[in-house]
Amino acid sequence: MVELARGLRLPEPVYVTRPTLPSLERFRESLEQVWDSRVLTNGGAFHQRLEAALCARLGVEHLSLFCNGTIALLVALQALRVSSGEVITTPFTFPATPHVLHWNGVTPVFCDIDPVTFNLCPEQVEALITPRTLAILPVHVFGQPCDVEALARISNRHGLRLIYDAAHAFGVRAGGRSIASFGDLTMLSFHATKLFTTIEGGALVSGSAALKARIDFLKNFGIADEETVVGPGINGKLNELQSAFGLLQLEQVDVEIAARRAVSARYRARLAGLPGLRLPPLDAPGVESNCSYFPVLVDRERFGLDRDALYAALKLFDVHARKYFHPLCSQIPAYRALPSAAPDRLPVAERVARQVLCLPIYGQLRPDVVERIADILWALHERASRG
Amino acid sequence: MVELARGLRLPEPVYVTRPTLPSLERFRESLEQVWDSRVLTNGGAFHQRLEAALCARLGVEHLSLFCNGTIALLVALQALRVSSGEVITTPFTFPATPHVLHWNGVTPVFCDIDPVTFNLCPEQVEALITPRTLAILPVHVFGQPCDVEALARISNRHGLRLIYDAAHAFGVRAGGRSIASFGDLTMLSFHATKLFTTIEGGALVSGSAALKARIDFLKNFGIADEETVVGPGINGKLNELQSAFGLLQLEQVDVEIAARRAVSARYRARLAGLPGLRLPPLDAPGVESNCSYFPVLVDRERFGLDRDALYAALKLFDVHARKYFHPLCSQIPAYRALPSAAPDRLPVAERVARQVLCLPIYGQLRPDVVERIADILWALHERASRG
Repeated sequence: MVELARGLRLPEPVYVTRPTLPSLERFRESLEQVWDSRVLTNGGAFHQRLEAALCARLGVEHLSLFCNGTIALLVALQALRVSSGEVITTPFTFPATPHVLHWNGVTPVFCDIDPVTFNLCPEQVEALITPRTLAILPVHVFGQPCDVEALARISNRHGLRLIYDAAHAFGVRAGGRSIASFGDLTMLSFHATKLFTTIEGGALVSGSAALKARIDFLKNFGIADEETVVGPGINGKLNELQSAFGLLQLEQVDVEIAARRAVSARYRARLAGLPGLRLPPLDAPGVESNCSYFPVLVDRERFGLDRDALYAALKLFDVHARKYFHPLCSQIPAYRALPSAAPDRLPVAERVARQVLCLPIYGQLRPDVVERIADILWALHERASRG
Repeated sequence: MVELARGLRLPEPVYVTRPTLPSLERFRESLEQVWDSRVLTNGGAFHQRLEAALCARLGVEHLSLFCNGTIALLVALQALRVSSGEVITTPFTFPATPHVLHWNGVTPVFCDIDPVTFNLCPEQVEALITPRTLAILPVHVFGQPCDVEALARISNRHGLRLIYDAAHAFGVRAGGRSIASFGDLTMLSFHATKLFTTIEGGALVSGSAALKARIDFLKNFGIADEETVVGPGINGKLNELQSAFGLLQLEQVDVEIAARRAVSARYRARLAGLPGLRLPPLDAPGVESNCSYFPVLVDRERFGLDRDALYAALKLFDVHARKYFHPLCSQIPAYRALPSAAPDRLPVAERVARQVLCLPIYGQLRPDVVERIADILWALHERASRG
């Protein structure tokens, strides 16, 4: 292995993602405007411009910026008064998803996922609804759209709120519509590891101006005016520096998506036929993906190594893939005692969490490095298969 | 009044506060380092340097940065498992204080305040303790230190947690010690309206490395390592841009305090003897204040105008004072039905909230503008007294 690693080693470490930064000179020009205005936060000019620009780019009407996606999702639940009872969600997500249920006094009910899309399985969602259920909180995992039609049907039939976690799904379209336009509310994350970033940040997309107005109060402590606090809100404000950064990022997001699409295509071409490595599904009809992740499933029998061994082996080559999502949220101590968290009720999610590995993908990942990563994967398979 | 306003009008509007910004050129130099490193958040080099620099400046050992003071205080309660029952706090505070109790599933118990310091009255705190009480959450209002000795005695005697909201109290010292060193945890706010700012931001000061480690997990979703999530945390991270901004701010904070001290002294000199306007108390022995606010109490009978009329009259002169804190937190809809919120149980807080007005104060407030504001106050009093 040491010899193999020496031959195929990369010139520098490759991490699972890396942000593409805007021009520092242009950012400095924006900062000059901030310095002149002395308005640093609390909904200034850049904040307003970024909200408008994101609405235009995403094809939505009402969007509220937040300091991060977690606080956005926390406020989404509060805005819709999902503050007791149960919410059906996926265990195959980042811990922020169930954590916002905790903060709203809600019990998560974990539901198993689809083996191809890794998203909530609508039939199983319906089977978990009880009189205490208030909402469904699905995640468009890796930017792959959920079955939005089935989930809309179920939520309508049962009178449930439908709140989407679209942390991964910036710019994705399904059925000719922005993925952020489905359900009652959709949360987007703009963390530094995301396709589009405000460094830390996030947003809620609402279906109406009234709901956006309520959200905008809640993210500013519930303050509606000098004399009125409409509810126990929080501080979810995004500041002017990050809003200005976001405006510059937005100009280059389509170039970033195209570049990731090219990386994804190269991985697909080079990894096709590699035994025991299942590649992400191709876009379904009507879906426009953002190629922001490249999750593979590792079948130990056929590949020759299990996911953990492959993860560790890649590290020797300075390729830092990510076990994303592992552990399942249903296995973390805060939630593992819940009845819905029992592993035998979540067989697909349990298997996917054991097998999944996200390979490095970002716009500036060089073609020769992608080729080299593919070479390494083939070499590891061949070495493992030889015994 | 119109004629009076014409004669004393200010050259430009004066707001209650205004941030003193660091050199944009130096900030750009820091940003170059961020751009080179591509580390934008998640505890990078500037974040570490700012934590260390703040410990040194404040004379404390363990400090954790946050994206804002509200999330910091929310995590403070969670870190100490104050997640049910009752917490005794003040109604004379910004809504963030009771809101974090809401988010932690805790019932606020409002306690009346001292008529001079506007801080929690320790005797009355003790009278409100029940078997359901878990903690005391006092606020060092306007940077005025609470009676930390009495509160320590009470919390020790009753086995209660003691968490300070020091949003206003950056750099304040009492009894030869940093105000941030009292109690189990102290929250600081670094919002743009504060003396020291990271634009949005805040911190928790802990008494031990173990508590800081727990807080640092909780502010990063509870993630302790790749495999372990220790609790339902949140995203409370401060990014590298704001940390870098904070390091430059910190270099000038002592100049800012000195400048505010001069503004404060000028107000005192010029407003001494103005009937019906009570000035903030002078520093008690052993207290080193930060002069970040200049709250006055308006006595309608003697001044000739009540607080609301004075607030409105000042606006005509383009002096934008602030009714801070009004309404009381005990009067906002989320809390006003609580037994402890009844106005007849909070007579001092009710009166102070009706009478208080914060006058403009910030380092760059020019002496002639301070003089002019004092002239306006005298003129308004004289005009009102003439009938």
